[in-house]
Amino acid sequence: MRAVPFPDSGTLGEPSSGAAVRDLRRVPIHPDHWYPLAWSRELKRGKTLGVRFAGDPIVLVRTESGAVYALEDRCAHRQVPLHAGVVSGETLRCCYHGWTYACDSGRCVDVPYLGRERLPNGVRAYPCREAHGLIFVFPGDATLADSRPFPALESADDRAFKTRRFGREVKCHYSFMHENLMDMNHQFLHRKQMGQMRARSVGRRRGDDWVEVDYTFARMEGKQPVGEALVFGASKKPGEQADKSVMTVRTGYPYQTLQIRSSEGTLVMDLWIVYVPLDAEQRTNRTFGLLSIHKPGIPFALDLAWPLLVWFTERIFREDRWIVEREQEAHDRQGADWNHEVFPVINELRDLLRQCGARTVIPIREARDGA
Amino acid sequence: MRAVPFPDSGTLGEPSSGAAVRDLRRVPIHPDHWYPLAWSRELKRGKTLGVRFAGDPIVLVRTESGAVYALEDRCAHRQVPLHAGVVSGETLRCCYHGWTYACDSGRCVDVPYLGRERLPNGVRAYPCREAHGLIFVFPGDATLADSRPFPALESADDRAFKTRRFGREVKCHYSFMHENLMDMNHQFLHRKQMGQMRARSVGRRRGDDWVEVDYTFARMEGKQPVGEALVFGASKKPGEQADKSVMTVRTGYPYQTLQIRSSEGTLVMDLWIVYVPLDAEQRTNRTFGLLSIHKPGIPFALDLAWPLLVWFTERIFREDRWIVEREQEAHDRQGADWNHEVFPVINELRDLLRQCGARTVIPIREARDGA
Amino acid sequence: MRAVPFPDSGTLGEPSSGAAVRDLRRVPIHPDHWYPLAWSRELKRGKTLGVRFAGDPIVLVRTESGAVYALEDRCAHRQVPLHAGVVSGETLRCCYHGWTYACDSGRCVDVPYLGRERLPNGVRAYPCREAHGLIFVFPGDATLADSRPFPALESADDRAFKTRRFGREVKCHYSFMHENLMDMNHQFLHRKQMGQMRARSVGRRRGDDWVEVDYTFARMEGKQPVGEALVFGASKKPGEQADKSVMTVRTGYPYQTLQIRSSEGTLVMDLWIVYVPLDAEQRTNRTFGLLSIHKPGIPFALDLAWPLLVWFTERIFREDRWIVEREQEAHDRQGADWNHEVFPVINELRDLLRQCGARTVIPIREARDGA
Repeated sequence: MRAVPFPDSGTLGEPSSGAAVRDLRRVPIHPDHWYPLAWSRELKRGKTLGVRFAGDPIVLVRTESGAVYALEDRCAHRQVPLHAGVVSGETLRCCYHGWTYACDSGRCVDVPYLGRERLPNGVRAYPCREAHGLIFVFPGDATLADSRPFPALESADDRAFKTRRFGREVKCHYSFMHENLMDMNHQFLHRKQMGQMRARSVGRRRGDDWVEVDYTFARMEGKQPVGEALVFGASKKPGEQADKSVMTVRTGYPYQTLQIRSSEGTLVMDLWIVYVPLDAEQRTNRTFGLLSIHKPGIPFALDLAWPLLVWFTERIFREDRWIVEREQEAHDRQGADWNHEVFPVINELRDLLRQCGARTVIPIREARDGA
Repeated sequence: MRAVPFPDSGTLGEPSSGAAVRDLRRVPIHPDHWYPLAWSRELKRGKTLGVRFAGDPIVLVRTESGAVYALEDRCAHRQVPLHAGVVSGETLRCCYHGWTYACDSGRCVDVPYLGRERLPNGVRAYPCREAHGLIFVFPGDATLADSRPFPALESADDRAFKTRRFGREVKCHYSFMHENLMDMNHQFLHRKQMGQMRARSVGRRRGDDWVEVDYTFARMEGKQPVGEALVFGASKKPGEQADKSVMTVRTGYPYQTLQIRSSEGTLVMDLWIVYVPLDAEQRTNRTFGLLSIHKPGIPFALDLAWPLLVWFTERIFREDRWIVEREQEAHDRQGADWNHEVFPVINELRDLLRQCGARTVIPIREARDGA
Repeated sequence: MRAVPFPDSGTLGEPSSGAAVRDLRRVPIHPDHWYPLAWSRELKRGKTLGVRFAGDPIVLVRTESGAVYALEDRCAHRQVPLHAGVVSGETLRCCYHGWTYACDSGRCVDVPYLGRERLPNGVRAYPCREAHGLIFVFPGDATLADSRPFPALESADDRAFKTRRFGREVKCHYSFMHENLMDMNHQFLHRKQMGQMRARSVGRRRGDDWVEVDYTFARMEGKQPVGEALVFGASKKPGEQADKSVMTVRTGYPYQTLQIRSSEGTLVMDLWIVYVPLDAEQRTNRTFGLLSIHKPGIPFALDLAWPLLVWFTERIFREDRWIVEREQEAHDRQGADWNHEVFPVINELRDLLRQCGARTVIPIREARDGA
């Protein structure tokens, strides 16, 4: 961990070694991590679910025993999606000619019109785990799966918190999502939801595979919305710093967290979020977020306020989605990263995402432009 | 004709000379054959119809005399489609500046604002014939048109049969269609329509431009649907071979037939079908099928059962269309033919389609991937 | 100005130097002219409007003082569109992090979370003028803006005329629009609206940056529609030349005009029109047209007839739009300009558009073909 002096100072814009820096928007996410590819509730017993990771089709299967497995989503025979097949016991049978695969290994165990002594090879099986209401897959080198950290998500499993699961497809490279959440100077975007908040970065830290930043907030003008009060705590009047809470945003590759602690150090809000690329060009991601709110002293107060909080977070999320999709559009049109970043923590985050990403380059189509 | 020993044995997968084998999905259909481009009923007297063959726009014209012609569907002047023009006697007049073409030759016979002594060249005319309720065009080398076999379609013209005409656009390379119909091991796909049938291949033969295979069928489980009984004949109980009928599927390039004969040798069902590429990439075909059923002894029995048969065949066709479009999607994503074919007759069919296809290579766009 | 002998004679088709001639459909429009990018009524006070010129995003801003400005439509920070921002006095504030730009210069004047002593560079400002109900921008070399002619549009500002403003997006290269209007032999396209008119070209002239042609018209058959009588004047009977009016169509790069003068020389109709490319491939243009009709002696007669005239011109415009989009489609499929032009004035116009266009070549995607 390297300490960074407070307040922020130093370089504006990209580091001067920029000539050799590769375009962050063409850095593939690194596959050697655990990624959620679906919510548990999306996969019923005896059913399949076709999902994607960075263009690779993957079929999730919940067998009749309730166990969850992940295989390549293509029959070894004619490449049609196995997710259209039939679960039978602990096997999956392709819908077309009935080739049958063991769900745990991907091995082909039956071709109905062929002797069993000459079975063809099967398909790849991915390490797969179910936890916290999510189905996680390890899409990279399977031999590394056990040694890589599995997300803890303590607040989501803690009864002192109430957790909201949310997410949506967003049409942009995952890096825009990380930068959006980490740069709290973008409160101006949410001025209709949150009034005029002014963030102040009060410290940042960095390690090999993580970077984090602390903020405090002050209200500049406008009335505090009720939804925000639930998240940030109520503030008395404009100009007053909101309750001395500190927000810490952290990218611990490839995940991101946002935690708010009260002045007494209590964890009030705990967000865990990850952006999973769907297509080969990694221009679309599926966001999986768990937002945990510490339950207040009064029983049921949070339950009563919950619909308001849902509405509030939906509106914010919609604005963020809109803006990052505009960023992606600009990159597509410009054909390169023209960003002129002046906020040091974001430049550190960008370095981190480049360093932690895969070593290859996303082969994107050339810049084009709709009317 | 080469005899092939029964039962099927020998090579699994592609021949070992596979390194030099070109990708079947990039083999263009050979243009030196008669292809139906429309149903007769689609082209009214004095009207035009714009159609396509492998990306080439063609206008079909039924002149005021009732004759049918086929021309390039572009005005020699400004390249706009002639199908938007006006039929006048035995000529076709472009809608834009009124350039006029003889329908039989494609010759330009009038430019209203230019002297007739200096008329420009016209457009290409294609050999064109109407038969069996179809309009056939010869899109290749016109000098070969007369010497190339014209489809006979005897059952469709025989009053002992009742014929259903059907077809639809299917978004895949024509080769997937041939393989789908010829590999009767795919009955598993139609398990909801047909119960569990088990096909058994009982012989195959091959010539220079054709390959065919015989099947018998046995019901494994489930009750025989009424629609299927009409086509295959009624079977008494599960496990019993259905009436000893033999089904022969044949690709006689570029057409395909499926015939069912009873144990006495009577032709019970006769399907003729062809898959005409529409776009230049040959990733979409229009299917023209004629399904002829021998009329049973009881008058009108078939007419009464007909709506059921229509429903039954529609459902089967829809399932086949769905699966071949998934095969095409997989090829688009994989960028090559990953198929691992283990059924010898299909490998022979693939050889045949490669050998009979055009010598060029379809220039496809690079593999891409939607979210 | 070079005189051209009357009547039209000489070369058919392209000049023989055709081998070296570049494809007109890949010639970019020249940016060093004043182009209308919006109607004045589209831009309200204190609001923005995102527009495009040949793929370049431009934001038009009407500040609180009512003045109109044009800036690059991207924030210098994260490239998101400034048109989603907030107008504040004479500045525009980006919606995302609140970076603020002076509308007149594009200079960045505030980054809320950064000291003012280290402000980043801003964005490009374009010369911008409002006139005749249009907002004009000079997208090219700004130092040339003052010296380049600004459209006069005298009839539109003259109370002796009534003016209709119209336009639409048309999916084709701007050159097809110029050729469409200038070649009056295409009256056949409008035969349902105008009966059978026969145009006769009676003279043409050319200068360095303009070409023009005169026409007279005769009715061949059919009854004269009322809408047409309003534009061309009433004609008595078929075969009679319509009132000896002369129509002059002129391309004065990059604009186009169509004027009809009565036999006495009175300007009866005056159309000014321009086709502004929207996308980088210049395959879509936005048309801005002002059609001025001289008011007849009887007060209000034109007002009464106006709805009819609107309907008439809408129908004609729709037919023209349809045909030029077919021309563009043909070019896309053919991958080159196959046009075989036989009308000398159009060949001169094509030369002019090539000579006056930008020196670069539009990088189009390779020819493709939908099903």
